[in-house]
Amino acid sequence: MKQVKWGIVGTGNISTQFAQGLQFVDHAQIAAVASRSFEGAKAFAQKFDIPKYYSSYEDMAKDKELEIIYIGTPHPQHYENVMLFLEAGFAVVCEKPLGVNAAQTEKMIAKAREKNVFFLEGMWTRFFPAFKQAVEWVHSGRIGQPKLIQAVFGYDDSGDKRQWRFQHDMAGGALLDVGIYPLAMTFAMFGSDPAKVSTAACIENGVDEYNTFTFEYSDGRIAVLSDGIGIKLDNSVFIGGTKGSVLLGEGWWHPDRVEFAPWGDADTGISQDRDVFHQPYPSSGFQYEAEAVQRYFLDGRKEAPEMPLDETLKIARMLDTIRKKWPLLYREDEE
Amino acid sequence: MKQVKWGIVGTGNISTQFAQGLQFVDHAQIAAVASRSFEGAKAFAQKFDIPKYYSSYEDMAKDKELEIIYIGTPHPQHYENVMLFLEAGFAVVCEKPLGVNAAQTEKMIAKAREKNVFFLEGMWTRFFPAFKQAVEWVHSGRIGQPKLIQAVFGYDDSGDKRQWRFQHDMAGGALLDVGIYPLAMTFAMFGSDPAKVSTAACIENGVDEYNTFTFEYSDGRIAVLSDGIGIKLDNSVFIGGTKGSVLLGEGWWHPDRVEFAPWGDADTGISQDRDVFHQPYPSSGFQYEAEAVQRYFLDGRKEAPEMPLDETLKIARMLDTIRKKWPLLYREDEE
Repeated sequence: MKQVKWGIVGTGNISTQFAQGLQFVDHAQIAAVASRSFEGAKAFAQKFDIPKYYSSYEDMAKDKELEIIYIGTPHPQHYENVMLFLEAGFAVVCEKPLGVNAAQTEKMIAKAREKNVFFLEGMWTRFFPAFKQAVEWVHSGRIGQPKLIQAVFGYDDSGDKRQWRFQHDMAGGALLDVGIYPLAMTFAMFGSDPAKVSTAACIENGVDEYNTFTFEYSDGRIAVLSDGIGIKLDNSVFIGGTKGSVLLGEGWWHPDRVEFAPWGDADTGISQDRDVFHQPYPSSGFQYEAEAVQRYFLDGRKEAPEMPLDETLKIARMLDTIRKKWPLLYREDEE
Repeated sequence: MKQVKWGIVGTGNISTQFAQGLQFVDHAQIAAVASRSFEGAKAFAQKFDIPKYYSSYEDMAKDKELEIIYIGTPHPQHYENVMLFLEAGFAVVCEKPLGVNAAQTEKMIAKAREKNVFFLEGMWTRFFPAFKQAVEWVHSGRIGQPKLIQAVFGYDDSGDKRQWRFQHDMAGGALLDVGIYPLAMTFAMFGSDPAKVSTAACIENGVDEYNTFTFEYSDGRIAVLSDGIGIKLDNSVFIGGTKGSVLLGEGWWHPDRVEFAPWGDADTGISQDRDVFHQPYPSSGFQYEAEAVQRYFLDGRKEAPEMPLDETLKIARMLDTIRKKWPLLYREDEE
């Protein structure tokens, strides 16, 4: 089988992790990398033994040898990057969130559909076997009737507030950076149409350092979600139902382990009734998403069923809804 | 030293636990017990070797030998029970919540002050050494600047929905039964004057089976609190600050253990920097509250500093505020 040729946009930490993951995908080749910095592109190419490197995204977009483009730039740049490569006819995977707001997201999705190419918001969590097991346990009724989700994702990166995540004009803040994870996880488990949303945030210098939001569903289910970039939190996911719960621990956004705990068990401490799914993986874990993308691309599909574009748009609209309740508006919201 | 003579009102599970705790308080004697049921009072008296038992609260209220009354009846009965014994001039400890709503609570507190007797809402959590250590760690700045509380208290008692906690006309529901614990814990840690409150609840048959509420403080601190009687939750308390966190685990409302985790620690997994306060106790743990009550009573104090009456009233008002947002109104709210 021939090699599928990937192009990588951006040479930061997330692109590095993606490239590491790609090493574990059969028939995948990183054929090119692009960065605004010539030195950055060159160093990245040398590190991963990539034959071509570009110091211009526009130049790489002309490289007809490439097939799938991965975009790992900060999210304020996604719109421009994505539109460039979609317009040029490539299949595109872009890091989450696709856009700074729903308006950008909508335009990108429309462009992908117009060009009839594969397009995906890189919500990598949904591609992990342990996460798929969690979804299966919740949807199959193993926890009984699902009732409540509690999920937390917070880390403290406030040691250097000069970085882009703490800048208002870079659309910084916790919600877009990490809050999207508990949000997308909840949509996967409980669906994307909560009846009511409430939220609170601690905003410093124009970005939300931490926040919390609650979804109420029309049948009484509730999701209580918190996230932060300015404070380390007790990161976990609890999905409780009438018969038991599903638990994901620290690092749950790229899980190698998920636990099912039937009720009775938690009270008595008897552990033999528990069911643990544990599947360790090498490298960064991005191989699960990358492998799926490559397979769908080769099959001629235009979306990944794990993260449909319509749901990506619903997530983007919910991010807007939450943010505007605080309110926190970005420059892009005025365009 | 002479024995202090206690009278117990109600012979259910909570009174049993209180009586068990009293066995570990020096100079405390349970001198009488009262129940509407003669057989219930007699059985309770025999179990704890109590010399007198009454099948009428009014008869026990005439027993001038008694000094401190503990009231362990369901909360819709508290108002009548408390007023009877306060009117008769006794020191009174009543289970939480003091009243079904703030109006009842206000009248009880006014009566205690009019009679100039000791009065306490039995928020037992605040009397445990491990809880006092947690408060000290938060208030002393050991976790740095406090930022966020996450607290959960949920159990599943829905197997028998005929019991009073699931009855609307008994002022049932999760908030008054268990939600008051994370609420009172947050007030102890962050203060009793949040600037904004938001909440969601799942209400079935006129009672809240589970709910969540969020407090925003004017300086950006946030508390995210959830509770249930219709679903077991992942019970814990996390109090995060700029330098570290305080953690209380399952059963945190009567803790024998609290952990301080400095940041860096949680990331690296290095455990030697952690600080664990562990003080196991025998029996139910009610001895901490009972011992303090007896000491304050003997000292001629009218309130316990752990749970001042003004704060009890603020808690009652907050319970009203949350409940009326759903809305869930009880019969007592119309009186």
